[in-house]
Amino acid sequence: MREVAIIGVGMNKWGELWNDSLRDIYVDAAIEAIKDAGVDHVDGMYIGSMTPGLFVGQEHIGSLMADYLGMKGLPCTRVESACASGGVALKSAFLEVASGHSDIVIAGGVEKMTDCSGDDATYALATAADQEYEVFHGATFPGLYAMMARRHMHDYGTTREQLAHVAVKNHKNGAKNPKAQYPFEVTLEEVMTSVMVADPLRILDCSPITDGAACVVVADLATARKICKKPIVKITGIGHATDSIALHSRESITRLDAVTTAAERAYKMAGKKPTDIHFAEVHDCFTIAEIIVAEDLGFFKKGEGGKGAESGETHIGGRIPINPSGGLKSKGHPVGATGIAQAIETVNQLRGDAGARQVKGAKVGMTQNMGGSGGSCVIHIMEVI
Amino acid sequence: MREVAIIGVGMNKWGELWNDSLRDIYVDAAIEAIKDAGVDHVDGMYIGSMTPGLFVGQEHIGSLMADYLGMKGLPCTRVESACASGGVALKSAFLEVASGHSDIVIAGGVEKMTDCSGDDATYALATAADQEYEVFHGATFPGLYAMMARRHMHDYGTTREQLAHVAVKNHKNGAKNPKAQYPFEVTLEEVMTSVMVADPLRILDCSPITDGAACVVVADLATARKICKKPIVKITGIGHATDSIALHSRESITRLDAVTTAAERAYKMAGKKPTDIHFAEVHDCFTIAEIIVAEDLGFFKKGEGGKGAESGETHIGGRIPINPSGGLKSKGHPVGATGIAQAIETVNQLRGDAGARQVKGAKVGMTQNMGGSGGSCVIHIMEVI
Repeated sequence: MREVAIIGVGMNKWGELWNDSLRDIYVDAAIEAIKDAGVDHVDGMYIGSMTPGLFVGQEHIGSLMADYLGMKGLPCTRVESACASGGVALKSAFLEVASGHSDIVIAGGVEKMTDCSGDDATYALATAADQEYEVFHGATFPGLYAMMARRHMHDYGTTREQLAHVAVKNHKNGAKNPKAQYPFEVTLEEVMTSVMVADPLRILDCSPITDGAACVVVADLATARKICKKPIVKITGIGHATDSIALHSRESITRLDAVTTAAERAYKMAGKKPTDIHFAEVHDCFTIAEIIVAEDLGFFKKGEGGKGAESGETHIGGRIPINPSGGLKSKGHPVGATGIAQAIETVNQLRGDAGARQVKGAKVGMTQNMGGSGGSCVIHIMEVI
Repeated sequence: MREVAIIGVGMNKWGELWNDSLRDIYVDAAIEAIKDAGVDHVDGMYIGSMTPGLFVGQEHIGSLMADYLGMKGLPCTRVESACASGGVALKSAFLEVASGHSDIVIAGGVEKMTDCSGDDATYALATAADQEYEVFHGATFPGLYAMMARRHMHDYGTTREQLAHVAVKNHKNGAKNPKAQYPFEVTLEEVMTSVMVADPLRILDCSPITDGAACVVVADLATARKICKKPIVKITGIGHATDSIALHSRESITRLDAVTTAAERAYKMAGKKPTDIHFAEVHDCFTIAEIIVAEDLGFFKKGEGGKGAESGETHIGGRIPINPSGGLKSKGHPVGATGIAQAIETVNQLRGDAGARQVKGAKVGMTQNMGGSGGSCVIHIMEVI
């Protein structure tokens, strides 16, 4: 396999983008990434998007976006693994370049969620759960993650305050991210008294409904060396794994097997262990998710993720900074784009371009992108050379 | 790049499968392919599906199918390019194996279309067209292809009878295919007098609404040689291209640029030309599509596809047999599965396993899978060794 690097990144400011359509927001992000990479052509494109069919009545977006980018004819494939769609887009672009079939490929992600009513958006998101055994009976993601939180509290003594600490920290980081949907801080008390969604999860434990897109340009290392004026960020490890998408089919609901398996694969490929990782962008769709994932990636012992969140170890400047971008919580969560935005933050950190939220001395970063209640997970390890 | 072969194929009998759900039909096809390949494990899976979210309210089907196959944990990605979703699944599996990241990968496709009402299915399919400029104004695919047919008749003198000849030939072939949804013959008169759908296209010019799945197992050539007891079928050429998905944005509506570009790429990669191809499975979603595609693949001069259909040259035993499987018309068209079923017919023909519809001396075959009104196209050239 050829070595593969990310040579350009681009995303628009995320939020409720009432004046832009699906194609507008994607094209903006892609053009920013192409300019950042300084390339005059690309050989292919993968777009992660969870369900543009349900959100805006549009499938076939690979061809649509190639056309609106002025690249009619470009081979382009949309990929999907629910909220891990961005992660599989990056993996697919990696493989196409690694194989030698192409030299320069865009990996992008996009979702336009606010054109839907609230009920319709909840229905669209629920299609990531098991339609026959969960959705049919009324389960939605806040409810599923609330059950995971309750059980984690029961088994490990995780507290309501510890959940809130995740939101406080991510909003603190996101306040320094000009692309974030909610770039403001929140206090512990504000989280603890915010509107209840699914006990114990309150509205400030939940990632928002977001319109947004994100793109990276990947290239083989030889091409990267020729083109890249900024520090080159190599993808050195990829781990991808699935699990039952139905929560009740799992042995445990406080452990995410897709995450542990994907992490094992990524660490092995990169020749790294958890203590080699300088920071991580993880999938905090709900505060409890960040706590469980931080354990399952090996950053904390099982059951100690809550204490870790409280201790400050996951803050910028802490032992293992998590979500310096602000995470899904503050940056926003246009589901198909999230995995790519994680890669963008990682590249920015490794290039030393992260401004006020820079993790000092960051040389090795990780992204962990997840679908549904953990039914799929894609992990990338990246290193600056 | 490593060389890649198809070592196993499987599909269920297509039709209106009221007693089986999306997961049931996919698992049946995958198990048949795994048994045919004789493998005891696989390293990854790609599933082409156009819009399971709109058809049955289920996304995240990569993880779902891995789980229901008893392969929880398996890296699995759903890919989509409207009705060319199966084609991009096969291409993705090819690239993963070619890169060396994996040795044995399943490429599958599935669609469960009949759980929708007729109106809902028409809406779901229309999401492959441009939502803002076509669907919003009421365009559907029969209407779009009818315009292409009218213009082809105007420009080249193609006749209503010539369109009908495509349906008659494909039903004649499909009558010999035990997996076909409509395995019976139709007469020229039956086609010409069948119910009008969108002038000049009648119901027997249109491919049906179908439930079905199809899977192939691909492997690197070294692994294939170790495992395969049947003749080995190599994928020697891949061409993938996009075009404007909106018909009105194209220079011509009687030429499919995605097809000509993809064909050019596939011929170049395989080192072949149209006269080297012994038979082709092409995307006859409507009879006019087969006529235009046969021209754009280089089997007929531009404008002579209609005469070609009438002449018998595309029959089994003719100069260039097209759709020996019965094509989408007779075999059925569960949109995401179609590209994989084309590959299965090609493997069966190249192995000499096609029974009563065998093309004699077939050594080089082609599949041509298309999305929307030609907004995307994936072509594979395969050769038996």
